Amino acid sequence: MIKRIHHIGIAVRNLKDSVAVYEKMLGNRAHIEDVPCQQVSEAIFRFGDEAEINLLEPMGPESSVAKFLEKRGEGLHHIALEVDDIDAELKAMQKKGFQLIDEEAREGVAGRIGFLHPKSAGGVLIELVQPRQEGEN
Amino acid sequence: MIKRIHHIGIAVRNLKDSVAVYEKMLGNRAHIEDVPCQQVSEAIFRFGDEAEINLLEPMGPESSVAKFLEKRGEGLHHIALEVDDIDAELKAMQKKGFQLIDEEAREGVAGRIGFLHPKSAGGVLIELVQPRQEGEN
Repeated sequence: MIKRIHHIGIAVRNLKDSVAVYEKMLGNRAHIEDVPCQQVSEAIFRFGDEAEINLLEPMGPESSVAKFLEKRGEGLHHIALEVDDIDAELKAMQKKGFQLIDEEAREGVAGRIGFLHPKSAGGVLIELVQPRQEGEN
Repeated sequence: MIKRIHHIGIAVRNLKDSVAVYEKMLGNRAHIEDVPCQQVSEAIFRFGDEAEINLLEPMGPESSVAKFLEKRGEGLHHIALEVDDIDAELKAMQKKGFQLIDEEAREGVAGRIGFLHPKSAGGVLIELVQPRQEGEN
């Protein structure tokens, strides 16, 4: 089951510069984290328990965010939807005809994640995320 | 003060087709509304009181969504941020150096709204929205 929007991902060229702009706009401080497994540095803006804004700077040219920036420039990159059971949801999406980028869930910043291909979702890159429970690593 | 993400706007060419895709993906029914003042037909997906997903089909070639589709194709179009006082926030954003599309707030679907120019917000079109109170028209 899709519960809610978990976060919005925004591709940026320079995390430090963009964090300064967004902190000024949002009146809110970012939490910064490097995510080598996804080849991105992230800045996470939280609004209580509601949907987050995540800024993403690629850590290298092989990062999918680097390819996005090259093709489309800075801007909105993906929506992440929170699910209660990522394994079941990925299977269900495939059964419903959505093309998966990740056939199996993998570890992400927010929990276990998997991406759907934008081709099957009207040009929008969709991430599914089953958040880590508090106390889990 | 920026309180939270109010909704994500997604530009689509054909609302009926896209609603079918998103209803299948989200397991959730859309509320459909024509918004002549913004020259769009909208499909609103709600997740309780949390951030919404809004699909936007232009009602004519003069719609800014039509221009977006022509230039970038279907995909993520804008983030709307909820504020408590739209007039004060627009003034504050301008003072902080953000370029406004709307110097004065205007009526939108969700309440009184105003857009910031993507040039000053790292390529992201930002809408500020002060939601209508229940009972208001």
